[in-house]
Amino acid sequence: MNKLLIVGTVAFDAIETPFGKTDKILGGAGTFIGLSASYFNLQSAIVSVVGDDFPQEYLDLLTARNIDISGLEIVKGGKTFFWSGRYHNDLNSRDTLATELNTLADFNPVVPQNFKNADVVMLGNLHPLVQSSVLDQMEQKPKLVVLDTMNFWMDCALPELLDVMKRIDVITINDEEARQLSGEYSLVKAAAKIHTMGPKYVVIKKGEHGALLFHNKDVFFAPALPLEEVFDPTGAGDTFAGGFAGFITQSENVSFENMKKAIIHGSNLASFCVEKFGTERMQQLQKGEVLQRLQQFKALTQFEIEIE
Amino acid sequence: MNKLLIVGTVAFDAIETPFGKTDKILGGAGTFIGLSASYFNLQSAIVSVVGDDFPQEYLDLLTARNIDISGLEIVKGGKTFFWSGRYHNDLNSRDTLATELNTLADFNPVVPQNFKNADVVMLGNLHPLVQSSVLDQMEQKPKLVVLDTMNFWMDCALPELLDVMKRIDVITINDEEARQLSGEYSLVKAAAKIHTMGPKYVVIKKGEHGALLFHNKDVFFAPALPLEEVFDPTGAGDTFAGGFAGFITQSENVSFENMKKAIIHGSNLASFCVEKFGTERMQQLQKGEVLQRLQQFKALTQFEIEIE
Repeated sequence: MNKLLIVGTVAFDAIETPFGKTDKILGGAGTFIGLSASYFNLQSAIVSVVGDDFPQEYLDLLTARNIDISGLEIVKGGKTFFWSGRYHNDLNSRDTLATELNTLADFNPVVPQNFKNADVVMLGNLHPLVQSSVLDQMEQKPKLVVLDTMNFWMDCALPELLDVMKRIDVITINDEEARQLSGEYSLVKAAAKIHTMGPKYVVIKKGEHGALLFHNKDVFFAPALPLEEVFDPTGAGDTFAGGFAGFITQSENVSFENMKKAIIHGSNLASFCVEKFGTERMQQLQKGEVLQRLQQFKALTQFEIEIE
Repeated sequence: MNKLLIVGTVAFDAIETPFGKTDKILGGAGTFIGLSASYFNLQSAIVSVVGDDFPQEYLDLLTARNIDISGLEIVKGGKTFFWSGRYHNDLNSRDTLATELNTLADFNPVVPQNFKNADVVMLGNLHPLVQSSVLDQMEQKPKLVVLDTMNFWMDCALPELLDVMKRIDVITINDEEARQLSGEYSLVKAAAKIHTMGPKYVVIKKGEHGALLFHNKDVFFAPALPLEEVFDPTGAGDTFAGGFAGFITQSENVSFENMKKAIIHGSNLASFCVEKFGTERMQQLQKGEVLQRLQQFKALTQFEIEIE
């Protein structure tokens, strides 16, 4: 089985949406990426850090999905990273109510020996120096390195972000961040500029409006599945990235054609994530449901036009 | 050849975008619908009204595209409907600077005898009573009636709008208008509610984010083509509707499968419309360009995933 190395936060989230609110529940980019990728046939490991307030139950939940957590440091006497946010009525925007870095503030990622030859590395949203440090520890060049980031690092650590961007193959980024990073409003122009910063593949996430994959002059688009109800968007972008990286790892194929499929698999998995609070839906997800929804994606997007 | 009857404004527009501004140029929903539909193999007629300030050159432009203008009333001493607007930097929103109804205020549509048996009727955005009056004049039930409308009529003529909606097959409407008309935020729920108001098919236009086609439990999505530069969005929605209605007219097939193709043709034609001011790009459009861009739509959206 091929190996996927995941770096990203494992955290507590407290979420308010128009439909309700939660206490501290399981969250974090690494968690969502790991759960999503675990749908595929692969070996995965999460490199991250938590405090000893992190419940055994959550650790068990990750290992039950065959995720190696030997690289998940548990800091004695430390507290786990905590994020709290409140979504507006349209669920498209949110206010951050609290961000407590806690053990994340001094995080030094340590890649497990067994994953230093991982086939695919998924660098979840974290300080670019942490992302770089993970790449430094690889003993073999991965077939594909995927990086997710956000505007916060463009504001606070741009030189470090630009450095790590030179070392990766695929960047996933949302539309506003792509505009900020490139200084271009048109997403076509933004992607072209981001190409010149390093990544050969640029994935622009547009939330409920789907995702675009750019590679030189080629473009592919995957819509988000139109849903009756979006309950909680938290983690959707990471679930998308996890599905993308997971499918690539399983299929061992880094061609543009295969990345199209990976984008569809990512969108498909993300469509489940938003149906319940936090990771709840992703924990219960059955293979049959995933396949059935892939059929819906086909029906949603595929057409027959013969062009003379 | 099958017949398409178009009702809609023929107008002067004055447009400001971040890229420049125009004097009074050719505009109007009927104009954009007519030009777009003229790409297909059909007979079309526009029912509308202008003043005698409307230049012969513009009339010639319509007839050169084989559009029957015997139902285009020219009011002696009257002035043509005039709209002026300024787009914001993102081109997604605009301010209306002027709306002069002029001859449109007393418009009584008269359907040419030769089009009272039209196969498809495209009711462009106008007062719902005008749209109804056109349907009253048909001597034979059309195979398909498509209606476009906007929030203005929901605010000022809702009962009349609800009346005409009971007589049509397809409504095209933008996302915000769908939400207003249905009182539902989710577009899936909005479409379901609009179904109950009459139209068996609901097309929700999302501008640069594409368009959705709903029919009972079936959904189809067409993205907008990602463009390097959007120059002027004026008329894109009407061009989309004209492409949709034109393709249906030509193909004489009102199945859901065929409507998928119609949605793609509509999106394809709209992607040209926004590349220049007003109708400029649609006037020069060559069949070869249209076919080439259809290939781009295929590359953008089609994928191969075998589902076990």
